[in-house]
Amino acid sequence: MPSNLFHIVINNTRSKKFVSLFCAMQQIFPYDQLYRFTNRVFISMGCSDTDAAIATKVLLSADLRGIDSHGVARLTGYVRLWEAKRINATPEIKIVHETPSTAVVDGDAGLGLVVAPYAMQVAIEKAKNVGTGWVSVRNSNHFGIAGYHAMMALENDMIGIAMTNASALVSPTFSIERMLGTNPIAVAIPADTQPPFVADFATTTAANGKLEILQRKNEPAPLGWVQDKEGNNSTDANELKKGGTLLPLGSDREHGSHKGYALGSIVDIFSAVLSGASYGPWAPPFPAYVPMPQNMPGEGLGHFFGAMRIDAFRTAAEFKQHMDNWITRFRNAAPAAGHEKVLIPGDPEREMEVVRRASGIPVATSVVDELVAVGNRFGLVL
Amino acid sequence: MPSNLFHIVINNTRSKKFVSLFCAMQQIFPYDQLYRFTNRVFISMGCSDTDAAIATKVLLSADLRGIDSHGVARLTGYVRLWEAKRINATPEIKIVHETPSTAVVDGDAGLGLVVAPYAMQVAIEKAKNVGTGWVSVRNSNHFGIAGYHAMMALENDMIGIAMTNASALVSPTFSIERMLGTNPIAVAIPADTQPPFVADFATTTAANGKLEILQRKNEPAPLGWVQDKEGNNSTDANELKKGGTLLPLGSDREHGSHKGYALGSIVDIFSAVLSGASYGPWAPPFPAYVPMPQNMPGEGLGHFFGAMRIDAFRTAAEFKQHMDNWITRFRNAAPAAGHEKVLIPGDPEREMEVVRRASGIPVATSVVDELVAVGNRFGLVL
Repeated sequence: MPSNLFHIVINNTRSKKFVSLFCAMQQIFPYDQLYRFTNRVFISMGCSDTDAAIATKVLLSADLRGIDSHGVARLTGYVRLWEAKRINATPEIKIVHETPSTAVVDGDAGLGLVVAPYAMQVAIEKAKNVGTGWVSVRNSNHFGIAGYHAMMALENDMIGIAMTNASALVSPTFSIERMLGTNPIAVAIPADTQPPFVADFATTTAANGKLEILQRKNEPAPLGWVQDKEGNNSTDANELKKGGTLLPLGSDREHGSHKGYALGSIVDIFSAVLSGASYGPWAPPFPAYVPMPQNMPGEGLGHFFGAMRIDAFRTAAEFKQHMDNWITRFRNAAPAAGHEKVLIPGDPEREMEVVRRASGIPVATSVVDELVAVGNRFGLVL
Repeated sequence: MPSNLFHIVINNTRSKKFVSLFCAMQQIFPYDQLYRFTNRVFISMGCSDTDAAIATKVLLSADLRGIDSHGVARLTGYVRLWEAKRINATPEIKIVHETPSTAVVDGDAGLGLVVAPYAMQVAIEKAKNVGTGWVSVRNSNHFGIAGYHAMMALENDMIGIAMTNASALVSPTFSIERMLGTNPIAVAIPADTQPPFVADFATTTAANGKLEILQRKNEPAPLGWVQDKEGNNSTDANELKKGGTLLPLGSDREHGSHKGYALGSIVDIFSAVLSGASYGPWAPPFPAYVPMPQNMPGEGLGHFFGAMRIDAFRTAAEFKQHMDNWITRFRNAAPAAGHEKVLIPGDPEREMEVVRRASGIPVATSVVDELVAVGNRFGLVL
């Protein structure tokens, strides 16, 4: 299968450059093939058919949107967490506290890929009733890309918000200690004839996945992404393996890293302190081989979701027409020399999804090897 | 009066360095003196006693907290907007649409300093009833520092959120056009015995006020704060006067400026598109001499406020104990070489407030001259 697809991709002009860069290190799979395999892995772990289907859809939405670090490349990581009994394949996810506009959800150590859509749906139902819904989640695990959950609001004519804490890799401004995760924020806002506004970003200067790409290419990192274990600027893309840390958005104090640090902290507090999850340096690590932190102050990872019904503010039709106007005006803002146009948050991911649905999803050969090994464990063929 | 205070400040060790840097260009005033003067200016404009009192308190909270660009230095700007009939001193502020957890407030072109606390109070009342309250505001003006409004939530055991759009000075990533304001976000989170977590920051790498300080000192700006009108990096602190623009938090694409651009956009959309205010490049300018944009798509400036009752998620006592733990842990994070300790968002402003309440507020002599002129206009003595 991969070789046929390869041919298709090579004849697709938009992807040619992409392929020429990566073909030696990757294989291309059609979405459906990855879907069937991933779905069967989750079922083999003991997930219900429904849970396996939603987990697969959420996980692969990352691959479709070009956020390769959060997609199928993580599948074996989830399996290892399940093997280590840190993930419960048959969780009893439930609301443990609520008001008309809020809820706390306990994920029962389930896959974040399943817990998060449940919690976001709770937020959406509350928004239907009282205008907005806000849900903080404890006792969960890695939930894939934040953007998927935020975008669930769109079809309901709502604004969607999603964030999560994550294992600590990031130092606060003036520190060398790992205190925060890359703690992403996603906000999805519907428009009328224009595509929606979808922001989805780590609150660090660069996400860890970008460092991994540089490591594979054996290239240095730009100054401002990482510091070494003493707090010196570094261009070593492998710095995290040597005790270094990621820097908050802004890179250094002079360029506003205290703002990135504040943003990452807000995500941590909304997701974990508000819900009773484990926060800051105590957030549970994703790699199953890393021991759990001592004296964890809460249960599992935390997430935070929001849904705001547009017509709780003004009519959806009016709002969406103004969003079209907003988007069109920003797309037509005068570009800087060397740039064709100004992008709207979500543009690159949406364009990537069109290409990858048509031409397949490239998977690094090292990831393919891992997937084959996981398949062998469950008697499944990729 | 100023000379006595000066003496006090010089004998205050913490402020010595500060005074030695600025004494030639500043005068020191006790808070009460600035309060009485500012309050009488607002009353002279026609504000009610109640409105003048709240406007004065909000405005001077910026001076107390060390955000000098947003305090009494702006008073003459408000007067000029009132003279230009862009500010209504006797507004009929009202809720024009609401659900149990949301409202849209029309500020009737009032002082943002008055409209914003009104709207934040609406958010707080809604949170009392249904757990959270979210208020989008149109037809307002500059509202002082976002942090003041967010902090109104604290005494109610709530998390407070405040943001506003502002006149366009910032280019999106890949653009040279002024499309967004510095669009600040403030989030205030209560703790128990520790002081609250209070983040309050512009979504740009540096706020305009920091450039103004460099201009006064005739010093260059760090690379990454501004670009010239062609989109080239610049260290000219006067670049904005030559058609250049401020850069979003992150400075350039490689360092995450698309994230700062997304954040500024979210603030613009929540504040102005959701409420029916004027957004993006059409946001009304603060300087009264700048003509209003053509074809404005909404009314005035927009703000957005949120209040979340802590016990809509978990008991306030439990949450605040964990916030104490969070704050203490982060304060004790290993510092980088050359730094004594890690700060919590809000620390510098709170420390500044202690100093300035005790020792007075320094006001640039150019600002003092303006205040004296405004006083003369109304027959008031500073």
